[in-house]
Amino acid sequence: MTDSYLDQIHWTGDGLIPAIAQDYQTGEILMVAWMNRESLAMTVAEQRAVYWSRSRKKLWRKGEESGNVQRIKDIQLDCDADVLTLQVEQIGGIACHTGRRSCFYRSLQDGQWQITAPVIIDPEQLYGKSSS
Amino acid sequence: MTDSYLDQIHWTGDGLIPAIAQDYQTGEILMVAWMNRESLAMTVAEQRAVYWSRSRKKLWRKGEESGNVQRIKDIQLDCDADVLTLQVEQIGGIACHTGRRSCFYRSLQDGQWQITAPVIIDPEQLYGKSSS
Repeated sequence: MTDSYLDQIHWTGDGLIPAIAQDYQTGEILMVAWMNRESLAMTVAEQRAVYWSRSRKKLWRKGEESGNVQRIKDIQLDCDADVLTLQVEQIGGIACHTGRRSCFYRSLQDGQWQITAPVIIDPEQLYGKSSS
Repeated sequence: MTDSYLDQIHWTGDGLIPAIAQDYQTGEILMVAWMNRESLAMTVAEQRAVYWSRSRKKLWRKGEESGNVQRIKDIQLDCDADVLTLQVEQIGGIACHTGRRSCFYRSLQDGQWQITAPVIIDPEQLYGKSSS
């Protein structure tokens, strides 16, 4: 496989592209994170989501601490070649570090952000788990 | 209605936030664009998507040329308060300037971006239409 698909992406000045992870069955948007060239290549090679953590400035193999790996079903690129969508199987059913299914758990109602989704697993339990 | 929901958003240094428009019925991701404070307030007030065009540096009332307005069904904010999802009804059924339903019409297959969705309306026809 060539790397030409990487060259066709319009990376930001920092060499990144946002990736939207979506449940491949329900269409629910689970989270948005960033990828660099290396993390996207790893994602494709391993068929699991590998992001670039801007805060930690390192590769972030989704689920490396929580076990909540995202298996890749499809990767899509938009018309401007500057946003990716990932169709994923969310292992463990939880994408958000708050212990919720999705990071988008707040909804604008009557001018306020209202929480609309429950915490499924306490984050302390989620990240207290030992994993590789 | 107060503006406190705007103050709770973590805007970029440029005062922007990315917004992902998703079909409220099918879950299909239609497009990603940017909003500033004013465009989000207008989106909420008018219940139609109003973006900020970074290239044209002006408010972009989605559908102002094509007629393909996005009616708002819900607006969600993520855990980091730096990405929005919009649940929309896509009038005309076409979100992409290429005349396709969604901007995410390319899928990575065997190391290449393959086009997986047809042009529904020729863009020249889409933007040749007179509208307010």
